[in-house]
Amino acid sequence: MDIETLTKEIAESARRASRLMASASPEAKNDFLLALASSLEDNSSTILEANRIDLARATEAGMDAPRLDRLTVTPAIIDGMARACREVAAMPDPVGATETQWQRPNGMLVGRMRVPLGVVAMIYEARPNVTVDAAILCIKAGDAVILRGGKEALNSNLALAAIIRQNLEAAGLPPDAARLVPVQTREAVNCLCRMDNLIDLVIPRGGESLVRAVCEVASVPVLKHYLGVCHAYIDKDANLEKALDIVENSKTQRPGVCNALECLLVNREIAAIFLPRLASRLKKSGARFRADPEALPLLGYMAEPLAPEDLGHEFHDLILAVKIVADLDEALSHIDRYGSRHTDVICTENYSRAMRFVREADASMVGVNVSTRFNDGGQLGLGAEIGISTSKLHAYGPMGVRELTTTKFVVLGNGQIRA
Amino acid sequence: MDIETLTKEIAESARRASRLMASASPEAKNDFLLALASSLEDNSSTILEANRIDLARATEAGMDAPRLDRLTVTPAIIDGMARACREVAAMPDPVGATETQWQRPNGMLVGRMRVPLGVVAMIYEARPNVTVDAAILCIKAGDAVILRGGKEALNSNLALAAIIRQNLEAAGLPPDAARLVPVQTREAVNCLCRMDNLIDLVIPRGGESLVRAVCEVASVPVLKHYLGVCHAYIDKDANLEKALDIVENSKTQRPGVCNALECLLVNREIAAIFLPRLASRLKKSGARFRADPEALPLLGYMAEPLAPEDLGHEFHDLILAVKIVADLDEALSHIDRYGSRHTDVICTENYSRAMRFVREADASMVGVNVSTRFNDGGQLGLGAEIGISTSKLHAYGPMGVRELTTTKFVVLGNGQIRA
Repeated sequence: MDIETLTKEIAESARRASRLMASASPEAKNDFLLALASSLEDNSSTILEANRIDLARATEAGMDAPRLDRLTVTPAIIDGMARACREVAAMPDPVGATETQWQRPNGMLVGRMRVPLGVVAMIYEARPNVTVDAAILCIKAGDAVILRGGKEALNSNLALAAIIRQNLEAAGLPPDAARLVPVQTREAVNCLCRMDNLIDLVIPRGGESLVRAVCEVASVPVLKHYLGVCHAYIDKDANLEKALDIVENSKTQRPGVCNALECLLVNREIAAIFLPRLASRLKKSGARFRADPEALPLLGYMAEPLAPEDLGHEFHDLILAVKIVADLDEALSHIDRYGSRHTDVICTENYSRAMRFVREADASMVGVNVSTRFNDGGQLGLGAEIGISTSKLHAYGPMGVRELTTTKFVVLGNGQIRA
Repeated sequence: MDIETLTKEIAESARRASRLMASASPEAKNDFLLALASSLEDNSSTILEANRIDLARATEAGMDAPRLDRLTVTPAIIDGMARACREVAAMPDPVGATETQWQRPNGMLVGRMRVPLGVVAMIYEARPNVTVDAAILCIKAGDAVILRGGKEALNSNLALAAIIRQNLEAAGLPPDAARLVPVQTREAVNCLCRMDNLIDLVIPRGGESLVRAVCEVASVPVLKHYLGVCHAYIDKDANLEKALDIVENSKTQRPGVCNALECLLVNREIAAIFLPRLASRLKKSGARFRADPEALPLLGYMAEPLAPEDLGHEFHDLILAVKIVADLDEALSHIDRYGSRHTDVICTENYSRAMRFVREADASMVGVNVSTRFNDGGQLGLGAEIGISTSKLHAYGPMGVRELTTTKFVVLGNGQIRA
C-alpha cells in the first residue's frame, strides 16, 4: 500500500470512529481510562522490552543524551502514565455541557454546547509518554486521535498503541479512535496535514523545524507547540531575594523544557548589586551566562560575551542570556522582538509597572513575581495537558481536555421564525 | 513597487499599529466609532459617487443581479453602516477583562485575560458594507485589520477606507490599524496568507472557491466562512403548522444568504400530508423543488426530479432539495454526509428525538423548532458579527468582537517557585 493510501485509510477509520466517540457515554470513556491504567501496569515488561529495542538502536545511531532521556521509559514513567489515566478519568466530562443559556426576546433559548472537535492528528518527537497523554486526553474529549510519534520510538509506541486499542474495544469504544501511523517518512505527515475533509486539527509538538514543516504544508488547521524563548525582567523595584529564587528556579529546575528561562533582562539601576549575587547563587548548578558588555564584568568567570544569535535562542541547557536594560519600555520592546509568545515574567514590587507588564507583554502566560516554570496545565490548575500552544487562536497556553473540544450553538424554540 | 514588497509594507505597518491598538483605551476606540458614524453620514455623497463608478463598470462587465445587489450602496445602507458603528461603540470593551480568577494552593492567583489577536486579514467579495463591518469590529477588539475586498468594489472601498483612516487619526489611534489592499491580483492574497510572522488570522469570507484558494496557500491560521448547506428534518411527530412556518421562513425570507435552507428531509410517515401543504404554502413565493422520486408526485408542478448534484449544493436561490427519509438516523446520516456544518434544525414535538438531534447533529448551530435564519450574531444575542465561521477551532458559528480576541494566562504571585 502506498503512503497516501495508507494515511487516507487511517484518517477515514479515525473519522468513522470519531462519530461514535462523539456520543460515547462519560462512563464508557472513564471505564476505558481506568482499565488502561491497570493494563499499562500489568504490561510494563512488554512496554519496557519494546523500549529497550528503541533505545539500543538510538544509541547505536548516536542519539544525544537529552533526546535519549526523553525516549527512555522506566517503571516510574509507566507508573506516571497509569496515574495520568486515573487523573483524566476523575476529571469532569467536558462534552455536552452548556455553560450559560440565555433567552431571546422571541422566547428562544440559546446556549453554546461543548462538543468534540472530531479527529486530532498529533505529530511529535520520540517521546513515548506523549503517545499515552495525547490518546487519553483526546478520548476524554470525545475525539479520535491519529498518533505520529518520532521514528526512534516506533517499537515503544506500537506496544503502547496496542494496549490502548485493546482497552478501547473492551470498553465498547471504537479501537480506531486511536490510530498510530507506523510509517516514518515525512510524506506521511504531509499527507495527514492536507486531509482537511477528514482531520479537524493538527498539533505539531516539538522543535521549530518540525513545527515549521507542518505549517508549510498544512491545509488542516494547526495549533503550534513551539519550545519557548522565555524572559524575566528584573525591575529596579524588584525584591531581590524573590528575584534570585525566581531566576534560579526558572533556569535550573528543568532547563530542557519549553517554560525554562532563556533570557534575563536586568534594570541598570540594580544590575551591579543583583548580577554578582545571581552568579554566586547559580554557581553550584553549573549554569553559565552569555552576557552583554555591561553585564559581563558583573558575572565573573561564569560568563562569556553575548553573541547576537543568543537573543531569541532556546538554549535548552543551563545557559542564560543576560542583558541590561534602561527601563520597562526597553524590556517590553526586547521581549516583543525576541520572545516567542510563550512565557514572560516581571519581578517588581511596583504596582503600576506590574500592571503594565501584565497588559502589554504578549505571551501565552505573563507573570508577576513567579517562576516561568508555572506555565503548565497542572501547575495552573487546568489538569493534564497535551502541550503548550503558542498559537493565539483557540488555545493560547496549556492545552487540556477543554481545548480539545469546541462549542456549537444550540437553539431551542417552539416555532420561532425570523421577521 | 512589486506586489510582494507592497503587501509586506502593508502587513508591517498593520503590525506596528496593532501594538498601539493593544493598549488603546476603550474611550479612544469608542470616540473613533462614534465619529466614524457621523463621517459616513456626512460623506454619503462621496461614497455613493464612488459606488456609482463601481456599479457602472460591473454592469458593463456583465455582473449578475445578486452580486450587483451586494455591491450596491444606497443611503439606507450608509445609515445601516452608521448604526452599526454606534452599536459597536455601545458594546462593552472585551480587552483586559478576566472572567474568572482562581487561587492555587501556593497562593498564586491565575486568570485568563482577554487580549487582542493582533493583525487580522479579511479577504472578501465585492461587498462594501463588509469593509466597514470588519474594520469596526477589529478596531473594537484592539486588532489591526487588513482589508482585501473584491476588485469590483475598489472605488467604494477606497472611499470608505479613507474615511475610516481619517477618523482613526482624529481619535489618536494609528491610521494603519485599517489598511486596504489596493492591488487586485490573486498574488496579493497569496502573499498575505503566508506572512505568519506578521498576520495572526486570515478570514476568507465568500464562495467556496475563494475560501479553498486561501486554505490551499495559507500558513497563517485561517477561519473559514463558507456559505451553508443548511438542512431541516421534519420528524413524524412535528407540529406541521410550525414546520410549515419554519420551512417557509428558512427558504424564502432571504434565499441568497448562507443560513437559508437548502435541503428538506421529511419523515416518510407524514410526507403525504406535509408535502402537498408545503407546495401550496410556497406557491406564492415562487419557490421550486428538486424532489426525490417518492416526494416528486406529492409536490405537484412546482417540483422537478432531484439530481445527485443537488444534494450538498447551495442553490443560493428559491430552490429547495426535498428527500424522504425513514427516521432520525437516516436524517442524521444524510446531514453528516451532505451538510456543511453550518446550520441544521429539526421540527418535532418528541423530546428524545429533539435531544438526540441537538447532541448528534454536527453544525455551528443546531436548532429545535426554529428557522435556520437565526444563525446570525444579532439574532442569537451576540451583537454585530464579521461572518459565520464553519471552522471548528476558536470560533464555530457567528464571529463577533469576542472571537476577534484571545486570552492569555495572567499569574500574580509574590515569589512563588516550582517545587
